Amino acid sequence: MRNLGLCTDLYELTMAQSYLYEGKTGKAVFSLYVRKLPENRNFLISAGLETLIKRIENFKFGEEEIRYLRSLGLFKDDFLDYLREFEFDGNIYAIPEGRIIFQNEPIVQVEASIPKAQLLETMVINTIQLETMIASKAVRSYLVAKGKKLVDFGFRRAHGLEAGILAARASFIAGFDGTSNVEAGRRFGIPVVGTMAHSYVMIFDKEEDAFRAFARLYPKNAIFLVDTYDTIEAVKKVVKLAKEGVPTVGIRIDSGDIVKLTKEARRILDENGLENVKIIVSGGVDEYKIKEWLDKGAPIDGFGVGTKFITSADAPYFDIAYKLVEYEGKPKYKLSPGKKTFPYKRQVYRYYKGGKMAYDETVKWGEEREGEKLVKLYVENGKLKEKLPSLKEIREVVIEELNKLPEEFKDIYRRCEYEVKIL
Amino acid sequence: MRNLGLCTDLYELTMAQSYLYEGKTGKAVFSLYVRKLPENRNFLISAGLETLIKRIENFKFGEEEIRYLRSLGLFKDDFLDYLREFEFDGNIYAIPEGRIIFQNEPIVQVEASIPKAQLLETMVINTIQLETMIASKAVRSYLVAKGKKLVDFGFRRAHGLEAGILAARASFIAGFDGTSNVEAGRRFGIPVVGTMAHSYVMIFDKEEDAFRAFARLYPKNAIFLVDTYDTIEAVKKVVKLAKEGVPTVGIRIDSGDIVKLTKEARRILDENGLENVKIIVSGGVDEYKIKEWLDKGAPIDGFGVGTKFITSADAPYFDIAYKLVEYEGKPKYKLSPGKKTFPYKRQVYRYYKGGKMAYDETVKWGEEREGEKLVKLYVENGKLKEKLPSLKEIREVVIEELNKLPEEFKDIYRRCEYEVKIL
Repeated sequence: MRNLGLCTDLYELTMAQSYLYEGKTGKAVFSLYVRKLPENRNFLISAGLETLIKRIENFKFGEEEIRYLRSLGLFKDDFLDYLREFEFDGNIYAIPEGRIIFQNEPIVQVEASIPKAQLLETMVINTIQLETMIASKAVRSYLVAKGKKLVDFGFRRAHGLEAGILAARASFIAGFDGTSNVEAGRRFGIPVVGTMAHSYVMIFDKEEDAFRAFARLYPKNAIFLVDTYDTIEAVKKVVKLAKEGVPTVGIRIDSGDIVKLTKEARRILDENGLENVKIIVSGGVDEYKIKEWLDKGAPIDGFGVGTKFITSADAPYFDIAYKLVEYEGKPKYKLSPGKKTFPYKRQVYRYYKGGKMAYDETVKWGEEREGEKLVKLYVENGKLKEKLPSLKEIREVVIEELNKLPEEFKDIYRRCEYEVKIL
Repeated sequence: MRNLGLCTDLYELTMAQSYLYEGKTGKAVFSLYVRKLPENRNFLISAGLETLIKRIENFKFGEEEIRYLRSLGLFKDDFLDYLREFEFDGNIYAIPEGRIIFQNEPIVQVEASIPKAQLLETMVINTIQLETMIASKAVRSYLVAKGKKLVDFGFRRAHGLEAGILAARASFIAGFDGTSNVEAGRRFGIPVVGTMAHSYVMIFDKEEDAFRAFARLYPKNAIFLVDTYDTIEAVKKVVKLAKEGVPTVGIRIDSGDIVKLTKEARRILDENGLENVKIIVSGGVDEYKIKEWLDKGAPIDGFGVGTKFITSADAPYFDIAYKLVEYEGKPKYKLSPGKKTFPYKRQVYRYYKGGKMAYDETVKWGEEREGEKLVKLYVENGKLKEKLPSLKEIREVVIEELNKLPEEFKDIYRRCEYEVKIL
């Protein structure tokens, strides 16, 4: 990985130099939290910590970065030397990936000498927001999909290649079964899946020739895209091919009246003994469509979920902040209207009633309470202390967490606010 | 840059192998266009072409990528050899960056043997969507800012580090004056700017000590953040410091009743002979806020524009597609409901009336018309043919384009549809 030292805002650097110049190098704690959940989110899934820890390891300044900074005429040689030797040697406290979290809960807390903790601000917010936002959107599809397969088809519409790759990770955590994103498959070991595009069907003289050619090469993955010309006609062609012995795993419908088309397709397939042929739907899929279609009895076996989830379209950013809460052991507050902050490094305690989450308390670190502790020390003096779980383990955490979430919070149409007591 | 070959969807690879297996290697044309502009966009700014061309040069498969693909059990050795030798040797036609574009206009057209053109699909959509979307959002702030300075403060809330860096590029094209994003400054030569954060102010015992320390180190950049505790009180402290001779370039207000606070701050500054001290505003800034504040007479000299622009929050994705339009010289159509496509490689002709854009025509490539041609051949047989302009040149194109855009299209509240004739 390249040096990430310049992945910051200029003011982090000018402030850091000034801190050093003023002898302000005491231990600071910055806390990252979402002030208020977006309208359509009753809870969030914590995600992005592993990505963040790796990035912090690579938050360094090589000669190229130093040369650029020198060219700005703002930085003195001794500060550039400080950056050249920059290594994060502080502590990182965090709520584990996959845990359900709410407003005002410290997802990540960075404890380090203030110039170092300050320099990381931009990267910490950026990294945790993206994956937490996507996981928190993706899980809504998982909640309504009733066990049907969910696949990330969003790469093309993500905000950049990196966003697409990290979104694949976040959606797998949140219960998706696979991704179309090959790089995410390689990097994270997520199962990769895919069918065929309309262009493929259009290249062959006849639709059935395209299906035949595909099945020849990929008999175990023979899912045919049937909506290039006339969906029902194409389903009939699939039946004909299947009867000829062409391997037929499923069909994919990407447009049209999904409820009507899937029911009709299912009927045709079943009447011809093709009960095992799956129906996959894509095109504008989100949690609202999934719920609507399944509620109307559409016989869908799997969904390709794309654009709206990968951009978190109904909540494409969070009211997320990285705030100074403690300096040299003393509490730090901000009093700006509407942006009140809560001082001190904190632990979050969670309380359950009948096995379900009842309320959380955030308290000053070190204050012992009864509930379950959510915040763990991950990095101590710059060294990873806590083993980072595998993606599959995080995914299992999410599923356990959902079992403990009160039912009303799982309703995608309902707005519930969880109680977080700030003590 | 690393190999980007896996930055694709799995089906691009399975289709490509099948094309080769079936001997379908004829010349195809794929066209990238936005089917319908989002609700709040009357026009788009074409952007991302340089990024795309560089990425296509790096669309390669090294041994690591090949090893992963082999592990999937889907690909034969001769196809993996094909990928190992993959090099784009086709043609890329595009509308230059900075031009104003509308629905159904081919932003990028890729002409190559079909497996190659197909493999690039995901990356072409992803790359052009991001920068075009951000430039098209950012320019709306430029349209209402009446010449006030605009700075990209969005890095922390972008969808990933890469999205933040590319958004800085796109916003500079669209008329912004600078960015807080240091990596974007290094990479693209965009002016970098920044002030101080609340944490900085909070670290000092007194607010004025923070201002003093900052001005000492950065006399030419002494912009003081005044809303940590009480905005007006802080402005009075700034006045006191300025009278003591502390360099004072400006103040920044990040919260509160912006119209009221900026008017009051301006009055206090002016009454004390500090007419040259600038007022910068940040926090929730978008084109609607800028227009509202300036319409109400808020004396603001510059805006830090952040979250809403960098996520294109009111239109976080486009209805954008990369469609097969021609194969072996023959037209290709798709007839799916609501997703009709237009065949052939195309040129776009633009017509003006009284110096203003009147309508466009998209016609089959080679058909000569009267209007101004928008589409250029950039890459021929894999080689860059057209010099890519500098960012500053692209920025000038945008400004010229805006001069030719009919006034009603510049109204951020109005919905206008430009006529694009598809012949």
